[in-house]
Amino acid sequence: MLHPKLIHPESIVVIGGSDNVQSPGGSVLKNLIDHKYPGQLYVVNPKQEIVQGVKSYKNLNELPKVDLAIVAIAAKYIPEAIRILAQQKETKGFIVFSAGFSEKDENGTKLEKEIVELINIAGGSLLGPNNIGLINQYYTGVFTRPIPKLDKKGVDFISGSGATAVFIIEAAESMGLTFSSVYTVGNSAQIGVEEVLEYLDQSFEEDKSSKVKLLYIESIKDPLKFLEHTASLISKGCKIAAIKAGSSEAGNRAASSHTGAIANSDVFIDALFKKAGIIRCYGRNELITVAGILLQKGSKGKNIAIITHAGGPAVMLTDVLSKNGLQVPSLKGTHCKTLLGELFEGSSVTNPIDFLATGTAQQLETIIDYCEHKFDEIDAMAVIFGSPGLSSVYDAYEVLHNKIKTCKKPIYAILPSVVNVKNEMDAFIKKGNIVFNDEVLFGKALAKVSNYTIVQDKVQTLELKSLKKVRKLIDALPNGYMSSETAFKLLDCAGVKMAAQKYARNKTDLHKVSETLKYPVVLKVEGPLHKSDVGGVILNVSNEKELHDHFDKLMQIDGAKSVLIQPMISGMEIFIGAKKEGNYPSIVLCGLGGIFVEVLKDISVNMVPISNKEALNMISSLKAFPVLKGIRGKKGINIQALAEMITKVSKLLILAPEISELDINPLLASENDLIAVDARICIKKA
Amino acid sequence: MLHPKLIHPESIVVIGGSDNVQSPGGSVLKNLIDHKYPGQLYVVNPKQEIVQGVKSYKNLNELPKVDLAIVAIAAKYIPEAIRILAQQKETKGFIVFSAGFSEKDENGTKLEKEIVELINIAGGSLLGPNNIGLINQYYTGVFTRPIPKLDKKGVDFISGSGATAVFIIEAAESMGLTFSSVYTVGNSAQIGVEEVLEYLDQSFEEDKSSKVKLLYIESIKDPLKFLEHTASLISKGCKIAAIKAGSSEAGNRAASSHTGAIANSDVFIDALFKKAGIIRCYGRNELITVAGILLQKGSKGKNIAIITHAGGPAVMLTDVLSKNGLQVPSLKGTHCKTLLGELFEGSSVTNPIDFLATGTAQQLETIIDYCEHKFDEIDAMAVIFGSPGLSSVYDAYEVLHNKIKTCKKPIYAILPSVVNVKNEMDAFIKKGNIVFNDEVLFGKALAKVSNYTIVQDKVQTLELKSLKKVRKLIDALPNGYMSSETAFKLLDCAGVKMAAQKYARNKTDLHKVSETLKYPVVLKVEGPLHKSDVGGVILNVSNEKELHDHFDKLMQIDGAKSVLIQPMISGMEIFIGAKKEGNYPSIVLCGLGGIFVEVLKDISVNMVPISNKEALNMISSLKAFPVLKGIRGKKGINIQALAEMITKVSKLLILAPEISELDINPLLASENDLIAVDARICIKKA
Repeated sequence: MLHPKLIHPESIVVIGGSDNVQSPGGSVLKNLIDHKYPGQLYVVNPKQEIVQGVKSYKNLNELPKVDLAIVAIAAKYIPEAIRILAQQKETKGFIVFSAGFSEKDENGTKLEKEIVELINIAGGSLLGPNNIGLINQYYTGVFTRPIPKLDKKGVDFISGSGATAVFIIEAAESMGLTFSSVYTVGNSAQIGVEEVLEYLDQSFEEDKSSKVKLLYIESIKDPLKFLEHTASLISKGCKIAAIKAGSSEAGNRAASSHTGAIANSDVFIDALFKKAGIIRCYGRNELITVAGILLQKGSKGKNIAIITHAGGPAVMLTDVLSKNGLQVPSLKGTHCKTLLGELFEGSSVTNPIDFLATGTAQQLETIIDYCEHKFDEIDAMAVIFGSPGLSSVYDAYEVLHNKIKTCKKPIYAILPSVVNVKNEMDAFIKKGNIVFNDEVLFGKALAKVSNYTIVQDKVQTLELKSLKKVRKLIDALPNGYMSSETAFKLLDCAGVKMAAQKYARNKTDLHKVSETLKYPVVLKVEGPLHKSDVGGVILNVSNEKELHDHFDKLMQIDGAKSVLIQPMISGMEIFIGAKKEGNYPSIVLCGLGGIFVEVLKDISVNMVPISNKEALNMISSLKAFPVLKGIRGKKGINIQALAEMITKVSKLLILAPEISELDINPLLASENDLIAVDARICIKKA
Repeated sequence: MLHPKLIHPESIVVIGGSDNVQSPGGSVLKNLIDHKYPGQLYVVNPKQEIVQGVKSYKNLNELPKVDLAIVAIAAKYIPEAIRILAQQKETKGFIVFSAGFSEKDENGTKLEKEIVELINIAGGSLLGPNNIGLINQYYTGVFTRPIPKLDKKGVDFISGSGATAVFIIEAAESMGLTFSSVYTVGNSAQIGVEEVLEYLDQSFEEDKSSKVKLLYIESIKDPLKFLEHTASLISKGCKIAAIKAGSSEAGNRAASSHTGAIANSDVFIDALFKKAGIIRCYGRNELITVAGILLQKGSKGKNIAIITHAGGPAVMLTDVLSKNGLQVPSLKGTHCKTLLGELFEGSSVTNPIDFLATGTAQQLETIIDYCEHKFDEIDAMAVIFGSPGLSSVYDAYEVLHNKIKTCKKPIYAILPSVVNVKNEMDAFIKKGNIVFNDEVLFGKALAKVSNYTIVQDKVQTLELKSLKKVRKLIDALPNGYMSSETAFKLLDCAGVKMAAQKYARNKTDLHKVSETLKYPVVLKVEGPLHKSDVGGVILNVSNEKELHDHFDKLMQIDGAKSVLIQPMISGMEIFIGAKKEGNYPSIVLCGLGGIFVEVLKDISVNMVPISNKEALNMISSLKAFPVLKGIRGKKGINIQALAEMITKVSKLLILAPEISELDINPLLASENDLIAVDARICIKKA
């Protein structure tokens, strides 16, 4: 938990504060003074007695007790300074701007550990080192500019990168985005993104706290903590949008199984965000556009009225919305006729509602009133209003401002004339409004927000009858891939229905097996990992002679240990996989099996524990879902049975987190049945 | 061809010019004066003798001869004005701002026809009506603001929407995008987008003309003309990026065949753009970002060095580039070591090259020099350089400016600090540079440009032996779907290899057919359009009894006319389709057949004529291409044979443009062979 003195310090000292406002120490002091920090300010500077009008102490020992220290001196002097502050000055909040710690070298890592330990012992909180600081409603403890427009209902923003935070704040300015707080965690020596989330979660107050959180993250150290507090905030009504940078192949590794190759680290981030209910963004512009939407009223549905006095942008917005799952429903009926009567000749009210380049502010007001009160099918309005530069549009923007404030349906202001009516836009923003400039970037963000559904559901308590069996099997296994035989046993314990298996290591085994065999059967070599690549799978073996012939051939394959004999089952090939990486909860993947997994990458992913509802959602979000449901005369599979199997695998993974990879492929599915035919499971114990 | 007097008028009259600069007539006059139109200016205004210092004629008849008329009076007065100008004043260029023509009602359409006729008779050129005008290096004939920064090497921009043109020009301003010309076509009564393209094509001069064209289009009236001139410009070294708005489902129609359902109008636009070599964009921001890249030097390859003093944006840019087919190659070797020695401790040169927040302009220069001269694997540089707001960055931007001018490799300036160093950015732009603000939007656009490959190739001359046969068959057919039998004949003429077909309309036929039959065979009902939906396809019929039983059942299906009997062939199911719509050339589609066409929508499209190279490109751009090549022990198909079949279908479509829909599905493909099993062809004669 973040110490209250970090959040709301009655007194702040800037260690290394100076008159040079181009230095971090001078700049943060200027920011605190300019933005009227109401508490007691001190400076420690060995050369001066007054810095920027603030009392400066040449020696740290002379400093009175102080709640928060903002440290902007060379790294090597910092441990001693923190020792004095923590032990003698009752300082509990620490913000360390300085670089030269763990991000630099081993010596820096040592220094960093030293200061964390000092602060831990004192029960204090450390933000940084190597960050730009913290901004909240109470003080502006950053050395960078600009200070964003502050509002307690603005966004809470946590950033893993100081520079990125600056650039996001800059880009947000021209949109009118307001901030409730900005936390930059730097090296996250003590407080990371997870700890700030924990604080925001635990200090959340329904009426007082901001409900929009933005994150820029480069790494997640504690996924479970991250998940706990983001999910909790979202369950309290918050919306969270986040960028997790570093999502490309750099972090991938060559994995030995199919599942492994698909599930790179980024898939875990996706699954984690989905589990928590976080809207994932990929760039600064996207993040702030999404934030701009989240800060406005929520929309009840997906039917958008586009109100415009310029055709082109309305057409492009219609395109992007309807291609991304939103509707721009065609308006009809008597209200249309009466509305049309209020507009200039040549206007169109079918949606987009185009009231022409000559349209007036009064007409804009009328149209919005119709959308608010008369067109019940409309859930939200997007108003596109620019100017060719001939006259001012203050009146139209005043209408827009008033309607945004009073209407129950959200109204989004898309104002494209960034040059012609810049003054009008600035005035509009000054009144507390949010502005979007590009209709297509807005439309994509609106679709992202609107399509975001959180499938959260209680997961059934684990009721595996074979709990003990599972643990006994797992505990006895070494690391690495277990045999098919063991994998089948394990899945059987989890309630996964398996095809009958018989193994033959030699001719004697084979003779014994063949006595009770019903043809046709399938033969599979045991030993090589990718059986079909080495010609190790023989389908449709229909008599004893073939059985023996193929057995002999299979046993000659490099690495062959035995041959698995199974009944020939037909059905749609389904795939369920699972993977665990680092300290992330396991993820489960599913899709149409075989080449579709590998070539088309049509796969759904979720993180354990997976409820039945979530499993159904996984299945229905597959592109191949129509195939699974049955299409054009071909029967589908038992979707509910597949969902159940996913939840069973989820349970198994929770019971046995040592399972690093699991691959049930194929799983043959018919209208009624769902039978696992082959499985591979890898164990990795900590 | 556009009349030279429209492009370079020695004299201009503004009909309806006034002192009211908030009116179109007053505003265009102000623009012409402010931007120093060098020719003779006149005004026609019945109330004044001098308007904005320009000689005004109260009566049109008094006006001297004049090259160009810009008309801003009420629609109803325009025909008479144009009559006088065209017949008495030798006026050849006409720009009509006024609305109230074909966009309004029937009467307006009549007026519009009238003025077009007058202008046609006089051999003049009309831009508009209902547009905002024209800007080129010589005059600024628009009534809107802002006038963009003009440069003969800037973009040529043609817009189907005046307001959209204004908004694009506004958005382009803060990027530093320059314009060579802006044409807005309004109602396109005489000059449409196609005619402006024709003019740009025919007047193109290698050294003098701009090589970047931007289009905002809402409709294409003459696709062939559009294709001819865009392809020609591109073959001359131009790059064209275009938005075609109105791409969503609104324009779609319920179609009777698979191909039809997939190929909505937007697919034709895609194919047309691909054929011409146009980069398709979907929003204003994307269009100008792409233009900003196209205006800079071209890159020889896809290896990008990211040079930054801030980690976050560099990571996001790395992500977006590497996810979209570009590389951010890791740099190694002695040059890395020596470069690292020139930077501050803690810098990284592995790419992204991060020279820290404290990095200097001098270091930036050194890094760029290394990328230009020493890192041979690097093709282009993206420099991300913002500021936390403590000090100015004039020096760094000066380095960037000089290096952009002198380096052979392109350097893209990503300057995110839109607030902190706005002045520095403005100065940088004033020197003629282009600026990108958001690294991810830039990265997506760079990938779009870099991945754009134009597969243009001479198509073999039509050498169909059966040319006459094809025409004879087609000429004899009525509109609608032809029988399978005729379809097979037609495809046979085109050289498409077909499975043997025998038809039985009744038991007598069946007996005759069965005499020479080799089992197993396939039975298909003839008559119903979607055979498999009605259970009309029976596979693997293996003896005469089965043949008769199934025949009887099939003939009982509603609409059954006969039964087609074919040998049972196995192979991968491929699909080739074709479609023609309006005056667009036919398109050919291909993909993996069956449910993959319908569910996964994994389809390649191209427009006829299709060369072998283009056909191969269609095949290799399928997501299912690995499957076609053969994967994991399964053999692939004969790719070259498929390509040839596509070119054969392309030839057939050129010979028989009456084919409105064609569907060869399935086409069974093996390692060697490619045999069409079923086909459906629809004829639509004009």
